[in-house]
Amino acid sequence: MKKLLVGIDGGGSNTKLVLTDSELNILEESVGGPSNFLKIGHETASINVYELVIPFIDKYKKADFYLVIGTAGAGRKNDAEEFEFNLRKCFNQNTKIKVVSDAEITLKGAFKNEDGAILIAGTGSILYYKSGKGVNRVGGFGRLIGDEGSGYSIGSKGLNTIAKMFDGRLKHSQLLNNITDKFGIDSQDKLINTVYKENFDIASIAEIVIDTAEQGDIYSLNIIDNETNELLEHLVALIRKEKLGKLNLVLTGGLLSNENFFKTMLLNKIEKSFPIINIVNPKHPPEYGAVLIAKEISSENNEN
Amino acid sequence: MKKLLVGIDGGGSNTKLVLTDSELNILEESVGGPSNFLKIGHETASINVYELVIPFIDKYKKADFYLVIGTAGAGRKNDAEEFEFNLRKCFNQNTKIKVVSDAEITLKGAFKNEDGAILIAGTGSILYYKSGKGVNRVGGFGRLIGDEGSGYSIGSKGLNTIAKMFDGRLKHSQLLNNITDKFGIDSQDKLINTVYKENFDIASIAEIVIDTAEQGDIYSLNIIDNETNELLEHLVALIRKEKLGKLNLVLTGGLLSNENFFKTMLLNKIEKSFPIINIVNPKHPPEYGAVLIAKEISSENNEN
Repeated sequence: MKKLLVGIDGGGSNTKLVLTDSELNILEESVGGPSNFLKIGHETASINVYELVIPFIDKYKKADFYLVIGTAGAGRKNDAEEFEFNLRKCFNQNTKIKVVSDAEITLKGAFKNEDGAILIAGTGSILYYKSGKGVNRVGGFGRLIGDEGSGYSIGSKGLNTIAKMFDGRLKHSQLLNNITDKFGIDSQDKLINTVYKENFDIASIAEIVIDTAEQGDIYSLNIIDNETNELLEHLVALIRKEKLGKLNLVLTGGLLSNENFFKTMLLNKIEKSFPIINIVNPKHPPEYGAVLIAKEISSENNEN
Repeated sequence: MKKLLVGIDGGGSNTKLVLTDSELNILEESVGGPSNFLKIGHETASINVYELVIPFIDKYKKADFYLVIGTAGAGRKNDAEEFEFNLRKCFNQNTKIKVVSDAEITLKGAFKNEDGAILIAGTGSILYYKSGKGVNRVGGFGRLIGDEGSGYSIGSKGLNTIAKMFDGRLKHSQLLNNITDKFGIDSQDKLINTVYKENFDIASIAEIVIDTAEQGDIYSLNIIDNETNELLEHLVALIRKEKLGKLNLVLTGGLLSNENFFKTMLLNKIEKSFPIINIVNPKHPPEYGAVLIAKEISSENNEN
């Protein structure tokens, strides 16, 4: 029977699918609703994956499907197995299903089978790397324990700084003006009400802090300097732990996907401190990384 | 008609009442359920206050009651007025009711009508002070914006430090051993699961950080040193803003009510840096501060 490979990047805002034949020729691409079960629960995540995949199962009737889905939270074995179990109930026996972490498909897409690392700085931050066979990580502890170098971390330090300006612990600076202009936060009470009563997106402050640092504001510069140093510490830990002589690194996530003052500062520091690091673009997107894993699984099945 | 004064300290875990005659002689004392409306809502808070007060209204039938309740959150005018409105519906016209902030009754109890400040470091932190007629504050922005010097702040820095130890950004130290011993946190995954899945009390880590600092652990010492410095910054801001030549200061809250290494370090720094600060004990507890305000209100009513 014909084999078809389905790679899925199950994100928090959408789910991307790519379908190829067994020679990795792309036949279909599609996008559906979110399928990060940590965010929306197992049931909705399963339904969204099912609705995304089923039209192609209907279309390519006489085929065995190898489906690999990568999603956040699947790094923890119990959670991954539960999601896999739920998904299996949706499909028939001709569909083989494997749930892996978002890190695994992203690394596979970015580097195929070569070693390398991905530094993600968006709302949160994490450093994933593949060294030999294993996938490992530095950071990624989330907002309560600390995700240094993330939009959340920069944003909360920005708010902490203007809080101190309101009550006289720090001098007023351009950062306060810029946050007041954009969010109308002009007093202690307004700051507290905004943050605690309106489910405020703290990471949205990061952009202002970065822009204000570029304008030369000393407090904002200090935050950006510290946060880029924290990201460097992630790299130091990786290089030291794995005793690396060289490292291919992909930068991604909301703060590092576009040019901005924060990314420029980080790149300058990496260039200066780590001549062994080579910044590269990913070879393929994460959903194609999932297809590559599906290909491996289908080949193993052949051998058995 | 006879006047009776009722002072109430409306806390998050209980509510304390003291009842005096118009000459401030204590006639009754009592404790009831919590009445911090921020924590338990206006309805439950009103009911708990009503149930605490009503036995005394029944007992002293022929009297005018002047009831003052101080509670957190009543520093914001709208919230205080809403709580006052809800309480008025419970009592008859012979009961005058005034809702004020917890800061106001605590300061009044501690210093009567003299100027002074209260530095609170428990789960959160804040510096309240009375200078001339007004009551003002430094800090108290809560965990999302930053409450430096609090148990939450120390605890989250402790967790951040051991997170970095797990993934090789920092060297293992006694702090990791002590947290593992007490909470069984011995890996990245265990740390994340504990903090995010079990509604973990982050402030409960503060005690370990303080004890480990006392044992000489360099990372813990660093945290305690920074957090005490942050509390000093609160005092600097107050002294600078109000141009104070001397300051009577009460230390209170979970971290400062008992002797411990954190309090000792803070006291040493205050003594060294601020010869104008005089650490004092409060004259009276907060509920008696509320009675003193009730007395002022009843006297004003006389004059009208």
